[in-house]
Amino acid sequence: MERYKGIIVPLVTPLAGRDQLDREGLERLIERVINGGVHGIFILGTTGEAQSLSYGIRREIIRLACKQINGRVPLFVGITDTSSVESAKLAQVAHTEGADALVLTAPYFFPAGQTELFAYVKDMVPRLRLPLMLYNFPGMTKIWFEIKTLTHLAEMENIIGVKDSSGDISYYKEVCKLKKIRPDWSIFIGPEALMSLSLDVGGDGGVSGGANVYPRLFVECYEAKVSGDLTRAEKLNNKIEEFQEIYTIGKYASKYIKATKCCLSVLGVCDDFMEQPFHRFRPEHRAMIIEMLKRFKVEQLVEV
Amino acid sequence: MERYKGIIVPLVTPLAGRDQLDREGLERLIERVINGGVHGIFILGTTGEAQSLSYGIRREIIRLACKQINGRVPLFVGITDTSSVESAKLAQVAHTEGADALVLTAPYFFPAGQTELFAYVKDMVPRLRLPLMLYNFPGMTKIWFEIKTLTHLAEMENIIGVKDSSGDISYYKEVCKLKKIRPDWSIFIGPEALMSLSLDVGGDGGVSGGANVYPRLFVECYEAKVSGDLTRAEKLNNKIEEFQEIYTIGKYASKYIKATKCCLSVLGVCDDFMEQPFHRFRPEHRAMIIEMLKRFKVEQLVEV
Amino acid sequence: MERYKGIIVPLVTPLAGRDQLDREGLERLIERVINGGVHGIFILGTTGEAQSLSYGIRREIIRLACKQINGRVPLFVGITDTSSVESAKLAQVAHTEGADALVLTAPYFFPAGQTELFAYVKDMVPRLRLPLMLYNFPGMTKIWFEIKTLTHLAEMENIIGVKDSSGDISYYKEVCKLKKIRPDWSIFIGPEALMSLSLDVGGDGGVSGGANVYPRLFVECYEAKVSGDLTRAEKLNNKIEEFQEIYTIGKYASKYIKATKCCLSVLGVCDDFMEQPFHRFRPEHRAMIIEMLKRFKVEQLVEV
Amino acid sequence: MERYKGIIVPLVTPLAGRDQLDREGLERLIERVINGGVHGIFILGTTGEAQSLSYGIRREIIRLACKQINGRVPLFVGITDTSSVESAKLAQVAHTEGADALVLTAPYFFPAGQTELFAYVKDMVPRLRLPLMLYNFPGMTKIWFEIKTLTHLAEMENIIGVKDSSGDISYYKEVCKLKKIRPDWSIFIGPEALMSLSLDVGGDGGVSGGANVYPRLFVECYEAKVSGDLTRAEKLNNKIEEFQEIYTIGKYASKYIKATKCCLSVLGVCDDFMEQPFHRFRPEHRAMIIEMLKRFKVEQLVEV
Repeated sequence: MERYKGIIVPLVTPLAGRDQLDREGLERLIERVINGGVHGIFILGTTGEAQSLSYGIRREIIRLACKQINGRVPLFVGITDTSSVESAKLAQVAHTEGADALVLTAPYFFPAGQTELFAYVKDMVPRLRLPLMLYNFPGMTKIWFEIKTLTHLAEMENIIGVKDSSGDISYYKEVCKLKKIRPDWSIFIGPEALMSLSLDVGGDGGVSGGANVYPRLFVECYEAKVSGDLTRAEKLNNKIEEFQEIYTIGKYASKYIKATKCCLSVLGVCDDFMEQPFHRFRPEHRAMIIEMLKRFKVEQLVEV
Repeated sequence: MERYKGIIVPLVTPLAGRDQLDREGLERLIERVINGGVHGIFILGTTGEAQSLSYGIRREIIRLACKQINGRVPLFVGITDTSSVESAKLAQVAHTEGADALVLTAPYFFPAGQTELFAYVKDMVPRLRLPLMLYNFPGMTKIWFEIKTLTHLAEMENIIGVKDSSGDISYYKEVCKLKKIRPDWSIFIGPEALMSLSLDVGGDGGVSGGANVYPRLFVECYEAKVSGDLTRAEKLNNKIEEFQEIYTIGKYASKYIKATKCCLSVLGVCDDFMEQPFHRFRPEHRAMIIEMLKRFKVEQLVEV
Repeated sequence: MERYKGIIVPLVTPLAGRDQLDREGLERLIERVINGGVHGIFILGTTGEAQSLSYGIRREIIRLACKQINGRVPLFVGITDTSSVESAKLAQVAHTEGADALVLTAPYFFPAGQTELFAYVKDMVPRLRLPLMLYNFPGMTKIWFEIKTLTHLAEMENIIGVKDSSGDISYYKEVCKLKKIRPDWSIFIGPEALMSLSLDVGGDGGVSGGANVYPRLFVECYEAKVSGDLTRAEKLNNKIEEFQEIYTIGKYASKYIKATKCCLSVLGVCDDFMEQPFHRFRPEHRAMIIEMLKRFKVEQLVEV
Repeated sequence: MERYKGIIVPLVTPLAGRDQLDREGLERLIERVINGGVHGIFILGTTGEAQSLSYGIRREIIRLACKQINGRVPLFVGITDTSSVESAKLAQVAHTEGADALVLTAPYFFPAGQTELFAYVKDMVPRLRLPLMLYNFPGMTKIWFEIKTLTHLAEMENIIGVKDSSGDISYYKEVCKLKKIRPDWSIFIGPEALMSLSLDVGGDGGVSGGANVYPRLFVECYEAKVSGDLTRAEKLNNKIEEFQEIYTIGKYASKYIKATKCCLSVLGVCDDFMEQPFHRFRPEHRAMIIEMLKRFKVEQLVEV
């Protein structure tokens, strides 16, 4: 099988209100990122507020996304849960509706030990009917997929790679080295400001939240880098770094998602309603986003 | 309303296999703890592996527990979830089936700020039709119910107290002081070795996992303490401390639940199957439990 | 040897300016706490800013304190250092000048493992000519004196007890249980709001920073407790808790020392200059201290 | 002033026993790294066990190193201390003996807030007579030099750069951006496996502990990278990564220094005695080092 590569957008979940999808917003958003050239779409990740959504909404977005995307780009579906039974049910929906792959973190309430984590994944994989990407996110799950654990898991053919959101580039490098035993694995990085750098140490691309807003910026930076046009890559990466300014607004961990949704709302793509326990930006923060979006002038570099 | 007091047992969830209740074990366990004199039963807590269970099982145990207990002691139902919609659904089931109160931690994937936590609880309470006990468990949820936040939440009549599993007795004391503004609040402590001590600083009792195994030991220790028989209370508390030895077996965070289930299995009460990502004790650990249970001689002090 | 018991005051170090003792302030402070009835004085602890002081000042305060106290109460000298050679030198000064005992935390820059910590203490003890109290302060040193390590160290006769500033009462209880093998050990608690409670679980007293300000309040609370006058003990403990309000001023970890020194300055006892990287309270914070000291009315309960 | 660049070796401190330098080992070590082409030498850093050494030894190594190096490469002297007075004294020795620059972390016992940290450095700089490099090492000091704090400190001319051992490449990138306001600043990275990568994000070189053992390996990797010979740079970087294997021996934080000293002892350069609370490798660990050094064959790539 060929490796997945490039920019996977971790789609926000457009919501019209509590437990209610903004369906038209979702359509517009999907069209926008596909037009922007993204190499894949990942729904029900952290940026997609998956854990805050009811299972009804989670199933609905799987169905709608499959239908709307219709095979134009690969679709990854997050099935992370504290209950393996619920993860398996979502995986079944993803398979039935035609998604391409699944994404799974460690269970995240009671922290598992590495032996338990290994046994958990080993037990899950045969219960899934789609390829699985492991998702390392110790900040949320309290535990790491340690390199030794990944080395053992590399024996399972249906595991196809790792997404790492630890922000620890030394760890990421170690993960990339696992391609020695699994050349087919895709190794994606979470933090978008590290995307370009991650390609230097053997990575395959980024799961970049900012690609919801400026898909082409991330896609072209990636493509400039892999095609060897380092000058252009650096210019675009500078723009990506400049864009990080939107994440300085607000003070809680949720500000990343809030800022992304706020941008999309300002751009007229979708609603910025958020499920509990989070809330859309207040007017003064929205005003800051509006001002920033004007200032960035991403369009001068890339047509969005 | 009168305060809840005494020993609330955070019931383990007897399982016969994946996604399958051990119904007879559940009945025996409930009878055992009621015979043991517990002042209340709390299902779907951490000890009950709530987060690892499918929603089907969660609903089923609510129904079965309500029916079996049949009002003999108050029943608390954990509705902790990352999705407020799913929490509210479970609360609805608890209300319909006749439970007495609900228990809720902070959402635990993406950590909320205190303002967000306050808004979350404020939004949840009117969606519930039963009184609510807040559950402080920063080790799992990453955030605290800070005293200031609790002070604001104390204005909501339908909140009836706090269970604190932080293990920080200074914090616990501060929570107890909130009785100045809410004399009707019940303040329970999680760590069972601190139960007796917690009564000295103004607490109302313990949510003591060990009461699954030796309910009368905990109940009599509590009662000796509140009746002023401090010599007997200390003797019983020494037994409780001795009992903590079972938690030294194994090396992961889950060992607390494993040990409790293993004891119950050894005592013939219920199966010790555990949902992913955890597993029952291996034979050598079970052998240690058998040896310990023989050695403790709790019966010499209290009839169990 | 008899156990040390009661209230040990961790003396602030009165400073007149950078690298300069406020000698008269030191005299007044020592007289004040002895008049207040403290059972011992501990210089060069955390409250004494030991780590911020030059070695010249450290030696000077040892000399002056020994001379001023002149055997009226036991004098403990902190010799905590990252260099065992410097610790041993200070210990030598303490011995020569006539101090009674030494206090030592784990080396605190590069964290040692438990085996290393054990070997370190085992190597230090014979290099000292005074009895040694171990000081558990994981918040500063990054490591704990684990119970198993303490159990092994209990074999060294010249170790005479433990001061615990972890704030973890479960750990403290475990330390107290070591009296089974070392009935002569003194187990002191750091956080002053836990002093009274610590006596319930087998402790011997507190190393209470607040005793710099209100020595008699702490002493009388301790004495009421051990003499069985629980009503008076609780009343006094409530005052101690009320006093904790001074520690809510300011926002950095150093605020505990700042508040204590500020109180002493307001009361005319000594200067509140602090060594780098800390600084005395600004006027608005000082004004809050003045207002609080007026409000506390400790004198109505105990003559200070 | 020109920026410092390249490989600065954080010299281990060769010791012949407690509080006793291995003077001949020190001479050999200095000659070895200078022959290996290092661009600078940093004594009294973490690798140099500075905090474990007596002040007598610290002064002696400054004198000996200045004399031995004799201006052939720049000499950086660590003056990190919890007492600003002692830091200033060491700085005076460094100046008198002819060192080139000083290196300073935050005070590391009681953690300072950012305002306090800023005031501390602002107060220190005029007390020093040599240029100062700030050293970010939150793992040891508990606090970061936050970017905002560095931005303010950038106004002090005598501060000449930052060494970052946080391991957080996103932070490191932000530090590098400060060259916009201070083009003369040198930004070095601590973790040696990140040295090559750090050059991609704007860094100036590494303070690489492994350069004690294989100076030329690090120097040539650096030089290949900056001269644009990326193939050779990668080859050498792979060797550096292979070399990291020595740090997998042992289980405590101190294993980095132990392994480095052990290598040097095996290579006949100097003694591997360590000051308390650490100890040289036991024979079985030394045997592993011997086996690894044989296997690495660094010499095939670079003449050492």
